[in-house]
Amino acid sequence: MHISSAFDSGNIRVINAESSPIELAIRPDNNSHFYQWFHFRLEGETGHSYLLRIINAGKSAYPQGWEGYRVCASYDRQHWFRIDTKYDGELLDFTVELEQPSLYLAYFAPYSWDRHLDMLAWAQGHEQVQLETLGQTLDGHDMTLLTIGNEQTAKYKIWMIARQHPGETMAEWFVEGFLEALLDDDNPRASSLLKNTVFYLVPNMNPDGSVRGHLRTNAAGVNLNREWQNPSMERSPEVFLVRKKMLTLGGDMFLDIHGDEALPFNFVAACGGIPGYDERHAALESTFKQAFVTASLDFQTEQGYPLDKPGEANMSIGTHWCGKQFRTLALTLEMPFKDNNNLPNPEQGWSPARCQQLAQDILLPISETLKLL
Amino acid sequence: MHISSAFDSGNIRVINAESSPIELAIRPDNNSHFYQWFHFRLEGETGHSYLLRIINAGKSAYPQGWEGYRVCASYDRQHWFRIDTKYDGELLDFTVELEQPSLYLAYFAPYSWDRHLDMLAWAQGHEQVQLETLGQTLDGHDMTLLTIGNEQTAKYKIWMIARQHPGETMAEWFVEGFLEALLDDDNPRASSLLKNTVFYLVPNMNPDGSVRGHLRTNAAGVNLNREWQNPSMERSPEVFLVRKKMLTLGGDMFLDIHGDEALPFNFVAACGGIPGYDERHAALESTFKQAFVTASLDFQTEQGYPLDKPGEANMSIGTHWCGKQFRTLALTLEMPFKDNNNLPNPEQGWSPARCQQLAQDILLPISETLKLL
Amino acid sequence: MHISSAFDSGNIRVINAESSPIELAIRPDNNSHFYQWFHFRLEGETGHSYLLRIINAGKSAYPQGWEGYRVCASYDRQHWFRIDTKYDGELLDFTVELEQPSLYLAYFAPYSWDRHLDMLAWAQGHEQVQLETLGQTLDGHDMTLLTIGNEQTAKYKIWMIARQHPGETMAEWFVEGFLEALLDDDNPRASSLLKNTVFYLVPNMNPDGSVRGHLRTNAAGVNLNREWQNPSMERSPEVFLVRKKMLTLGGDMFLDIHGDEALPFNFVAACGGIPGYDERHAALESTFKQAFVTASLDFQTEQGYPLDKPGEANMSIGTHWCGKQFRTLALTLEMPFKDNNNLPNPEQGWSPARCQQLAQDILLPISETLKLL
Amino acid sequence: MHISSAFDSGNIRVINAESSPIELAIRPDNNSHFYQWFHFRLEGETGHSYLLRIINAGKSAYPQGWEGYRVCASYDRQHWFRIDTKYDGELLDFTVELEQPSLYLAYFAPYSWDRHLDMLAWAQGHEQVQLETLGQTLDGHDMTLLTIGNEQTAKYKIWMIARQHPGETMAEWFVEGFLEALLDDDNPRASSLLKNTVFYLVPNMNPDGSVRGHLRTNAAGVNLNREWQNPSMERSPEVFLVRKKMLTLGGDMFLDIHGDEALPFNFVAACGGIPGYDERHAALESTFKQAFVTASLDFQTEQGYPLDKPGEANMSIGTHWCGKQFRTLALTLEMPFKDNNNLPNPEQGWSPARCQQLAQDILLPISETLKLL
Repeated sequence: MHISSAFDSGNIRVINAESSPIELAIRPDNNSHFYQWFHFRLEGETGHSYLLRIINAGKSAYPQGWEGYRVCASYDRQHWFRIDTKYDGELLDFTVELEQPSLYLAYFAPYSWDRHLDMLAWAQGHEQVQLETLGQTLDGHDMTLLTIGNEQTAKYKIWMIARQHPGETMAEWFVEGFLEALLDDDNPRASSLLKNTVFYLVPNMNPDGSVRGHLRTNAAGVNLNREWQNPSMERSPEVFLVRKKMLTLGGDMFLDIHGDEALPFNFVAACGGIPGYDERHAALESTFKQAFVTASLDFQTEQGYPLDKPGEANMSIGTHWCGKQFRTLALTLEMPFKDNNNLPNPEQGWSPARCQQLAQDILLPISETLKLL
Repeated sequence: MHISSAFDSGNIRVINAESSPIELAIRPDNNSHFYQWFHFRLEGETGHSYLLRIINAGKSAYPQGWEGYRVCASYDRQHWFRIDTKYDGELLDFTVELEQPSLYLAYFAPYSWDRHLDMLAWAQGHEQVQLETLGQTLDGHDMTLLTIGNEQTAKYKIWMIARQHPGETMAEWFVEGFLEALLDDDNPRASSLLKNTVFYLVPNMNPDGSVRGHLRTNAAGVNLNREWQNPSMERSPEVFLVRKKMLTLGGDMFLDIHGDEALPFNFVAACGGIPGYDERHAALESTFKQAFVTASLDFQTEQGYPLDKPGEANMSIGTHWCGKQFRTLALTLEMPFKDNNNLPNPEQGWSPARCQQLAQDILLPISETLKLL
Repeated sequence: MHISSAFDSGNIRVINAESSPIELAIRPDNNSHFYQWFHFRLEGETGHSYLLRIINAGKSAYPQGWEGYRVCASYDRQHWFRIDTKYDGELLDFTVELEQPSLYLAYFAPYSWDRHLDMLAWAQGHEQVQLETLGQTLDGHDMTLLTIGNEQTAKYKIWMIARQHPGETMAEWFVEGFLEALLDDDNPRASSLLKNTVFYLVPNMNPDGSVRGHLRTNAAGVNLNREWQNPSMERSPEVFLVRKKMLTLGGDMFLDIHGDEALPFNFVAACGGIPGYDERHAALESTFKQAFVTASLDFQTEQGYPLDKPGEANMSIGTHWCGKQFRTLALTLEMPFKDNNNLPNPEQGWSPARCQQLAQDILLPISETLKLL
Repeated sequence: MHISSAFDSGNIRVINAESSPIELAIRPDNNSHFYQWFHFRLEGETGHSYLLRIINAGKSAYPQGWEGYRVCASYDRQHWFRIDTKYDGELLDFTVELEQPSLYLAYFAPYSWDRHLDMLAWAQGHEQVQLETLGQTLDGHDMTLLTIGNEQTAKYKIWMIARQHPGETMAEWFVEGFLEALLDDDNPRASSLLKNTVFYLVPNMNPDGSVRGHLRTNAAGVNLNREWQNPSMERSPEVFLVRKKMLTLGGDMFLDIHGDEALPFNFVAACGGIPGYDERHAALESTFKQAFVTASLDFQTEQGYPLDKPGEANMSIGTHWCGKQFRTLALTLEMPFKDNNNLPNPEQGWSPARCQQLAQDILLPISETLKLL
């Protein structure tokens, strides 16, 4: 039996591999106490069962994330299925029966830096796409912005950023699906949107954390989604660079794509608690949500985060900062690590393909909301 | 230079191949005066230009179909592009410059019997699909019904039939797209619909006309969409068999998929003119249309057929007969041979891929309408 | 339970469908006594077993073909597997347990006219390919010649024709594989051959028989491989047209691709019995065979047809006529309907993929033999 | 204009990006003087031309590698084409005209660690494949061995190792093609070989160097192909682990896959200079080479390395050590960075697809040589 994690976004420490259960611990983000993302490969004897235990599950960033959680697993690194777990408030146990010599296990289907570069390379081949490097992260990775549509003629500007929290890989699967929908010549809503709208996409806001196998922070252990008021090139160049570009270009709608550890639903969090939230904000938000409910049965509005009291929003959060700065609709989209409990898929749970379908369906609420602008 | 049409759905007669323009005539449906569908292969010298003239265009079934029409063409039988035409009320002229030794030309992208059988063979591999032959056509082809969903537990029954008029191949491209959407595990609306609904699909209502290269009739020259009151095994076994099954099983919604030669838009024709059309009919129709407009920018309600006066509908038409017989929503969906002029695609016009996208988008109006039942 | 064959190359008659065994008869070729090819679809109850009996197997063209034969079957029309049979010298019995609602059954994996046209359309997109229609069959199908390579600069001319006997579909699978190998830029032998050689390919010598579901003859019931001395446009236009082109262009090597009902091996038959067979003929034949044995373990020389006595060859056979007329190597390649017993594949027997692999491997004997010219 | 290399196998230093030419230097392998591998992304203005200069080309490991060399380039990271260079003995100049916003440039088409893991994950799904981690490199990467075939029943054991020199990525493209051929059920020679032979494959002998963008050494700057006499876990765990396994299992044939910077040909280097090289060695070597020449026009024996004098071979080289230790055929296969000048491909040069084709063709010399054992 052998466990390895020496690859893109790998994260696990082997505490005990000699006896059953195999004891594992998730390694915290560098310079941080946050942890919950794991990704490793188990190699063993085909046909044999292995009981695995994550011994520090109870002290992870979001312990409620383990309740009802099922581990993502793949033999071929393409198809990811789920494995049941048992969580006692401290330990997370699950049993793997190997059908092949090795199995990949992860908190959610990984989205590698190689795939990120492949996506950019594919997208730039489309005539409506511009690609621009805004600068570098602390580890030296490129911060890349895709501009889709005609900046000269467009009436509206929409920003979509993803994966401020690198362990929320569903966010980048979502962006990939969004790009595919937007660049599909046969999608009438995409064609129509691109006639008067330009999209600014940052598919990966946290390359360093992604490659390092972090849950929530960048190479310096900084939670980027608490940096929007005073980002710096020293602590949070990712936010600094993107925010600067936003200030230069402006925007009419801001979407920040995330995953939520605990809630088994898709939902959005708006910025009702920011100073200056007004009727226009509310109308845009309401129109967006209503149209999204129409567009996708995987989206709902009943479950979500508690609302901030008026004026009490944490302004260092990206969505809040954008909503106030640009006086327009800014939303955080949260997808589940677990599943959409309104429409569960027992074999795969929430999955890359469902992220991509949801991304295709977000074109409707976007276009409906634009009508109010 | 050589012109051939000895293949599935081939249709052309060469009148003059010796001098330019090459003169062609469309062959009428067997035992009928209808004609407009053509499909042939032009073989010539690469790099050379050929002027082609359809000399009997003006006397075809729908001469207004030639106004603004552009011919469908393909070198590889996969990708179909458009070629401009000139129509003077009698002759249809177009020029082909060969980039490869031979080029297929057709009224719309063909959908062959082989592809039909491939689609059935693919669909039957899905556990939610049943396949049943209802009987045979006059030429001996199978009339096949696909049942998707659980007949035992379903609350609603929806019928979709396509290609009563065999030259309207977009109807079968639409069915293929509908099946793909319905059988996509990652499509939440499909998964949700299949929990309480069973779909009865007849992907091809007119196999004989399809294979023979007809526009509008079956092997006996009968327009099947005028046979719904008194179909017979002698004249119209296709309608006889399907209608009998409908009477046995009943249904809550009926969709008949067609193409329209003249109007460059997607639209539906309902059955406002049938006896017994009431407020419930109207509410279902209105909900369906409104939701379809929301779902797809390729659908609209401003352009369409003139309405029948109350009680004056032709009851031999499938949609009308179904609407009256089952006292529920029955619609004819019309797609263009030309393009959707609200969102034109200069290179391809209305195309197989856009039929398939529209079919995916019809899931929303279907599910919204079911809520009223 | 329902059996249908109303599709490309369909062939079966249902004698008794009321009781078990289901009794079937193969329909003879039109105007002929030859029969052995069958192709039909069985529709029934999933999970149910059906005993099928071909009652006229013993009187078919090659009764020894049924000994050790296993039926080809496919649910999806893509993957073909084998089903065991029992043959008592008269009746051929086999049992089908349906895993899906319907199953296709055939003498060998079919190669449809639609696929033929797709192959031509694909091939003509390659810059080294010319496509030319030589004329029409009795049913009006095109006789198409593909010319691959540069006619102006080539030093050698090689002809390959296939499927004179339409039921020998492996011949066209072979041609498809040969084309793919020849047009593969990364295949060094193909690139090298095309520098000094032009290939003339007739992928389907018998379109009418292919579409009609014949074993051995054209629409008029004529065995084309007995027509090479005196073909006519009335009886055998297929041979007439190709032979005329051969006489115009000449050739340095002739390959005629066939299938053999009885022998479970791949082998070639040369033309040792023709008048004028000399040492050069023998040297070419020997080099070809030896290199083919080297190139492919699916080829062998121990099993094959008995040799004609010198001068006693039937000169109406294509290979013999070519060998004498052009005084060069002419070979008939025979592939099995059953399997290569030296390297059997229990699940699929001899298969389309193996035909294609063998076709790729024939490039070596071709190029080795050219060295002698 | 922006240049980045912060990705798998990236290697470049930007000396001057302010003026033309853009001056670049290749970074030496860690703790080593070797360098020649480069891999970076150039981002600029579409339509603009950039003159790039590698200023330290003349001092690289194999300066003669730049003579006639053409740079590998790709927009989409899938298709790699070549760009002409000018080399004056010191500087390597080439001009890039951007057709898209960014372009990848590399010494040869890269083979990433992600693709390596994908290949292993794919291969292990085949029932004839076993996967085993032998231990870890200095950077913590897994050294993985694939065992293909039945160890219990096999008569012969063949070892293939690749990419001791990590910059020779063609070696791993070759292994991928070899695996595909070997696991292809329709390849008769593969099926036949696996009946009596087991293959031990190490697809990547130098993971650390591969990921780091090294030319020739591991993380410690050690040239692994000079470590076979006295490898250690401290300096050369890669060789230590594989050599230990070889000593345990033994072997009948050893193939070490490499690339050569200078010679534009494919060739093998055997071990004629080792002590104990005898007639049996020579016969095996001769049979192998002769059969390889037959199998592939991309292989030849006229160009290659000068022969070692008898007994003077460097025994720290893998092939030499294996040849002596196991007293059997041991070969180094060299593929070009440039092209096969006997059959040049102007657009792509030597390429991944051609590596894969050559790997498929090596089955023949392997099986021919086994006959002598």
